[in-house]
Amino acid sequence: MKADLDALMEARGLDGLIAWVDEVYSPPVDYLTNGAHITQGLVIVKRGAAPLLVANPMEVEEAAKSGLEVVTLTDLGFYDLLETLKDREQATVQAWGRAFERAGLPEGALGLYGTADVHKAIALVRAIESALPQYRFFAETGLKGRDLFAEAYSTKGDDELRRLRSVAERTDEVLQATWDYLASHQLDGDRVVNAQGRPLTIGDVKRFVRRALLDRGLEDTDMIFAQGRDAGFPHSRGEETADLVAGLPIVFDLFPREFGGGFFHDVTRTWALGYARPEVEATYAEVMDAFDVAVEAYRPGMATKDMQIAVLDFFEGKGHATSRSTPGTNEGYTHSLGHGIGLNIHERPGIGHLSPDTFQPGNVITIEPGLYYPARELGVRIEDSMWIDASGQLLPLTRFKKDLVIPLERGE
Amino acid sequence: MKADLDALMEARGLDGLIAWVDEVYSPPVDYLTNGAHITQGLVIVKRGAAPLLVANPMEVEEAAKSGLEVVTLTDLGFYDLLETLKDREQATVQAWGRAFERAGLPEGALGLYGTADVHKAIALVRAIESALPQYRFFAETGLKGRDLFAEAYSTKGDDELRRLRSVAERTDEVLQATWDYLASHQLDGDRVVNAQGRPLTIGDVKRFVRRALLDRGLEDTDMIFAQGRDAGFPHSRGEETADLVAGLPIVFDLFPREFGGGFFHDVTRTWALGYARPEVEATYAEVMDAFDVAVEAYRPGMATKDMQIAVLDFFEGKGHATSRSTPGTNEGYTHSLGHGIGLNIHERPGIGHLSPDTFQPGNVITIEPGLYYPARELGVRIEDSMWIDASGQLLPLTRFKKDLVIPLERGE
Repeated sequence: MKADLDALMEARGLDGLIAWVDEVYSPPVDYLTNGAHITQGLVIVKRGAAPLLVANPMEVEEAAKSGLEVVTLTDLGFYDLLETLKDREQATVQAWGRAFERAGLPEGALGLYGTADVHKAIALVRAIESALPQYRFFAETGLKGRDLFAEAYSTKGDDELRRLRSVAERTDEVLQATWDYLASHQLDGDRVVNAQGRPLTIGDVKRFVRRALLDRGLEDTDMIFAQGRDAGFPHSRGEETADLVAGLPIVFDLFPREFGGGFFHDVTRTWALGYARPEVEATYAEVMDAFDVAVEAYRPGMATKDMQIAVLDFFEGKGHATSRSTPGTNEGYTHSLGHGIGLNIHERPGIGHLSPDTFQPGNVITIEPGLYYPARELGVRIEDSMWIDASGQLLPLTRFKKDLVIPLERGE
Repeated sequence: MKADLDALMEARGLDGLIAWVDEVYSPPVDYLTNGAHITQGLVIVKRGAAPLLVANPMEVEEAAKSGLEVVTLTDLGFYDLLETLKDREQATVQAWGRAFERAGLPEGALGLYGTADVHKAIALVRAIESALPQYRFFAETGLKGRDLFAEAYSTKGDDELRRLRSVAERTDEVLQATWDYLASHQLDGDRVVNAQGRPLTIGDVKRFVRRALLDRGLEDTDMIFAQGRDAGFPHSRGEETADLVAGLPIVFDLFPREFGGGFFHDVTRTWALGYARPEVEATYAEVMDAFDVAVEAYRPGMATKDMQIAVLDFFEGKGHATSRSTPGTNEGYTHSLGHGIGLNIHERPGIGHLSPDTFQPGNVITIEPGLYYPARELGVRIEDSMWIDASGQLLPLTRFKKDLVIPLERGE
């Protein structure tokens, strides 16, 4: 949670942190500016103090929406430095140094964060450490799963939950709209056609979904709409030009975010058009049971891995290979149970059988068991996003129904 | 141009470069993989050798579309390293080291490039330099305008031009569709209303444009559709809830890119609905003249600044303040004339009066003079994207007409 940032800095011996945005959407800047749409600048947080936002003069109005104290590059004398030094790198280094001082950091250990040009970041940090040796930059890879923002992001405050809930509601509307769109088609044998008899393709559906998202202020970040054999590969996006076929399973994994960058939702439904083949129906029932096993295993504060272990035990008991029983398998239950979501599609806690995390109030997570048998044209995944309230209860964010078959009329 | 990469590495004393993608769209990886949609991995280019693509095993099919040699993390023994070392950071460092060797780089000076998590990048580079001291990482800030990829991007090859031209054609279609959409409305006094008499808002237009882009495989990256006073601020996006008003200037700056990341187009039209106020008409005529001054000033190989200087001379001769005559002005001609476009919205060459660049075959640039008087509700900008062919000719990419007034019928 944002309130943890001071403690997270202290644990790392950090005096301050800097979140950077440079033309590309940068989650920690969104996080610290409360969603203001700044395209260039820094947020500087001195441990124990209020953040300072350094903005481009052209973006002061937007910067003010953050509620943070704002200084501009002009205030910092950047343009004078440029004139005097005739060197954009050195002017930038000096202006950053002035900004650190302005934020109450005349020296110390800092961390630089954000999504941006990594080459430029490495060079800037070196240039600052060389020209302003009173600063040194701390860095951790995050590959141990515990970097500073990853820990802060893992529990959400009320403002974040409000945005997450709004994205969830709008995503539910898009699922309903997509269901209705598919249901407006007809069967011609096992072909799925529109009123004019034209076959419906995966590309048609994706275009419909992207428009439905846009109409609600959301953007697609590369949905999966994959049928049959492709549904059996958890990573396959689905072939745009493929015609939809009745009876086969369709894995529809939708993970949109606020338009232009922001909070994500993540939901998967498996649908069959007109009817489901018997094997699809049976597999669907098993995955539904696994979903219930996961939710019923939940206890406040438990190790997340124990939820995945309950699901692994369940699937292995039914005779399926899993990523525990058969590491690297691409048949059976091949992935972990879920993950946190927020300003990033994959956050803490992870819900895998090797995860070190525990469930905490404020977590917003996915639960997404699945079974995959690509050689049998079979793939089923069911995913809801859920959240844990202050009392430790696990509650749904996704509300959309979990029905397998979308009934279609048969054309004459 | 891509063919220049070896020379650009040599000029910097680099033995190799690494382009990195880690869940977020990363331009240099798109560049080196010829548009393959890889979400995680590295492209390693040894100077003088063909690139090697290191991909996630789940993305090998997509990786193959790059036409590059592909190795997976499995091939590199990453999962065995993880088991042995029980440390994801060290396993990653060792796997990257194996990948460098596989690419023919047992040691040397490397550069890391891409859009990604900057904190993780800094930590990874330090971890590699510490565990594998045979590698050292070169970095330049790019603030001098001449970093390696910026130089390579500045001239486009045939494949890149093909994609850029396709984006240009689709953007032209969207301009026409938007013109037609606006023209389908009516005037009620100076209000712009639909057939049911409901006022048309800027939000309505932006939603229309975003759908029109999506239908053509493009995405909006934060268009400007700003009228009146807002049009007078080059950076204002326009207020979603504002009703459109006849007679005022509307600055419509559209810079979409290929859906999910890729090549940009960049075009601006200034429109007035129904009619233009006389001052808008006069200002529009001056900006059109400035556009012609810019194009007529062009000579193959010239310094880009001389094109901007021609426009500055023209506007100053007409009595307007400019960023040369009055640095920091927010009235008159307040910005530079243009910039390169490609996989990034702002590339080399820059066309400002201090730019060190020259025009070269393969450049794809914008030319975008404008005049801004926010206090008088006045802003006009006209922008085309253009390119320079092998013979040095400056040719249009944008084809859409440059008309100011969109005629509207008057409701009864």
